[in-house]
Amino acid sequence: MRGGDIQPAPTGHSIPRRVGVVGLGLIGGSFARAYRAHGWDVLAWDTDADTLDAARVETVSGVLDQASITSCDLIVLAAYPAACIAWLEDHAGLLGKISREGAGPLVIDTAGIKRQVCERAFALAEQHGFAFLGTHPMAGTEHSGFAHARADLFVGAPLVLVPPALGDIERLQLLDRAYMLLEPAGFGSVSVTTPEEHDAVIAFTSQLAHVVSNAYVKSPTARVHHGFSAGSYRDLTRVAHLNAPMWAELMCANGENLSREITCLIDALDAYREALDAGDRDRLRMLLADGDRIKRSLDDDNRH
Amino acid sequence: MRGGDIQPAPTGHSIPRRVGVVGLGLIGGSFARAYRAHGWDVLAWDTDADTLDAARVETVSGVLDQASITSCDLIVLAAYPAACIAWLEDHAGLLGKISREGAGPLVIDTAGIKRQVCERAFALAEQHGFAFLGTHPMAGTEHSGFAHARADLFVGAPLVLVPPALGDIERLQLLDRAYMLLEPAGFGSVSVTTPEEHDAVIAFTSQLAHVVSNAYVKSPTARVHHGFSAGSYRDLTRVAHLNAPMWAELMCANGENLSREITCLIDALDAYREALDAGDRDRLRMLLADGDRIKRSLDDDNRH
Repeated sequence: MRGGDIQPAPTGHSIPRRVGVVGLGLIGGSFARAYRAHGWDVLAWDTDADTLDAARVETVSGVLDQASITSCDLIVLAAYPAACIAWLEDHAGLLGKISREGAGPLVIDTAGIKRQVCERAFALAEQHGFAFLGTHPMAGTEHSGFAHARADLFVGAPLVLVPPALGDIERLQLLDRAYMLLEPAGFGSVSVTTPEEHDAVIAFTSQLAHVVSNAYVKSPTARVHHGFSAGSYRDLTRVAHLNAPMWAELMCANGENLSREITCLIDALDAYREALDAGDRDRLRMLLADGDRIKRSLDDDNRH
Repeated sequence: MRGGDIQPAPTGHSIPRRVGVVGLGLIGGSFARAYRAHGWDVLAWDTDADTLDAARVETVSGVLDQASITSCDLIVLAAYPAACIAWLEDHAGLLGKISREGAGPLVIDTAGIKRQVCERAFALAEQHGFAFLGTHPMAGTEHSGFAHARADLFVGAPLVLVPPALGDIERLQLLDRAYMLLEPAGFGSVSVTTPEEHDAVIAFTSQLAHVVSNAYVKSPTARVHHGFSAGSYRDLTRVAHLNAPMWAELMCANGENLSREITCLIDALDAYREALDAGDRDRLRMLLADGDRIKRSLDDDNRH
């Protein structure tokens, strides 16, 4: 392994902090770039050697491995869910050992679903005695991979935190530590929730949006729409372009919630279709006015 | 009526041209503001006296009526489809008379569906002998009404033109005249098509987008999504906020096309749901990859 070429964190007026990033895709790469831009030392690990090499040109100063984990203040798991769990299982013993010595990092995952990763991670953290917090940075683009990672990807974005079941004081301490350590990412707002609520809501706000966008372009009419589309079409289909293996993993791990949301949308769409087929303009107007009213009330809620 | 206070178009180095706008909503109001900003004299008519008064403060110099129609170079019908047809029926005789005298305006409609308006308008234009062209400016916002009208609403936007069946030379002359007269709006690109093709494609690119967005927010989960939503949710639900009476009229006049597109989307969504319910991650990945591939190929087509 290439762990040997890591230098000790340089010292000076202030000691730069060190973050370890597992998985240099869009999310992990953006964490790496954001922390690097804030003067942190960034270590990383990725299954793809070329990606790791590319990241080492400007962003990453060394490989995150058994030896270097000890020196990290924060470890960000940004691989696919199953790979994050596998990494944690491999390193839980070591993380527990350094934590007992009083120097362990805070470990967070950043997966788009929280039950699958958090259930296992909470159990490992409790068993081995290290600090773990589930997170979901609500940011992304329709592009994936380190090449699209940006230091400002999370600036102003909402962050969802999913802490383990703890006493009030331990919980506050854990969240305070997270706020401090996550400061370089620049999130705009923070919510705290449970894995169950997170997955139920995310099925609607994110996973359903990707399914609908991806399904939308499958109409045969899509092939002849040249020059006939305005902003509504562009917005509806923006996230049709997606990382299929990643989303398939996230969606299958949240299958029940997402299936329920798809059913809900199909039922709603069916009502408009029935009104159209019956030529019932009053009914259609009421259906549209109802959606308009809901949308305005949601927008009002989000402003307050 | 208030037509009496219209002044003759001022003269000088160049004679300002004059446009008449029927219906001062978002679209008509934006035409009025764009032409005014380009030095044209703008006349208008609206069923709502308050709107007309508001528009006369800065944009509209007089009321478009029987007397003032004669002096217009261009008349833009921007009311709801049925109201546009009613206006044309009321004024077809006069338009024919001034056209025979060699001074008639080009009349365009701007409705979001083209068969209903164009069929009647083409017949009236042929019968009475005036120049009519169907248009659909592919621009808008989720807000409606004159208050949201903007002089730059159409700048860079696609414009769809729907000419009547004419000989090649007459058709070219009509389109050339339209290009010249529409120049102040600043459209970015122009397509020419038939009413039938327009309505089939618009059911997919615009009407379906509005139905899906409007249906999306009807999930009970929408009420608890506070702080959990990123760009994909915002984009999917942007046009949920809409003018229900207007869209109900446009959609019902294009019911067969739109119903077919809704069916197509429901069938596509059902395939993802089946894969989720079966826990079939490979199948789900293939469905997602297929949408991704189609989206990328559509984006490539639109770049060339």
